[in-house]
Amino acid sequence: MKKESIARWISVLHRQFQIYLNRELKDYDINSSEYIFLVNLYEKDGISQERLSTNLFINKAATARAIGRLEKLGYVKRTRDPNDSRAYLVTLTTKGLEMRNFIKTKLNYWTQTISSGLTTAEADDLVQKIKKMTMNALDEIKGDE
Amino acid sequence: MKKESIARWISVLHRQFQIYLNRELKDYDINSSEYIFLVNLYEKDGISQERLSTNLFINKAATARAIGRLEKLGYVKRTRDPNDSRAYLVTLTTKGLEMRNFIKTKLNYWTQTISSGLTTAEADDLVQKIKKMTMNALDEIKGDE
Repeated sequence: MKKESIARWISVLHRQFQIYLNRELKDYDINSSEYIFLVNLYEKDGISQERLSTNLFINKAATARAIGRLEKLGYVKRTRDPNDSRAYLVTLTTKGLEMRNFIKTKLNYWTQTISSGLTTAEADDLVQKIKKMTMNALDEIKGDE
Repeated sequence: MKKESIARWISVLHRQFQIYLNRELKDYDINSSEYIFLVNLYEKDGISQERLSTNLFINKAATARAIGRLEKLGYVKRTRDPNDSRAYLVTLTTKGLEMRNFIKTKLNYWTQTISSGLTTAEADDLVQKIKKMTMNALDEIKGDE
């Protein structure tokens, strides 16, 4: 197995994850590029769109699109930031909060499924390495979007 | 670091890879969902569209779209399979073949960049584990596209 296969297998794995999410979230009209914003808001609700963008390494235009769609579907609402009139704060609605356990369950199921056959120590080590590669990648891409 | 972070970091890493490819291939009008077909054809030229789809775990509609675009740009051409009149064979054009070294160099650079700080043994082990996870993922998703 050569080093050059890394990016390819990651692409394939990521594509399967998107297919899985789109399948599981279809009934709720949420797609694989939107769910991640809900997950971030479950961790910290009421943050700015810009902060979401930074946290998730997703550019501003794509963030605005996803949040706009989630708002239209009634999962989040946007309000002006009282401390910065140019910024929007994004807050989960009741409908958004109600999805929390469902999404969490689906993500846990996926993780269990793909890491089947790996020990917890192996999975932890893997995450550390993928994270390291991501940091290397971010250094390369920085400010490029 | 918990198991549930795996999918998230893989998403972030994959997104950086797409940004990198789109940046590097921009002048050639090839995007991050198309280059992979060229790479597969560099390994084996003149195969059917269906085979490309299977090899790359990309569904038929998306494969047809990407190949159609690469054909329009002059990188590949499609001909009827003499052994199966319903199928198309995809072949690299001179223009497509000329991209080979360029794309290879770009992919190698990316791999070197992201795996900086990992030994070859660590990178190999990582690929094996990601491959295993991908196989687990494919078992879950199988026939679902």
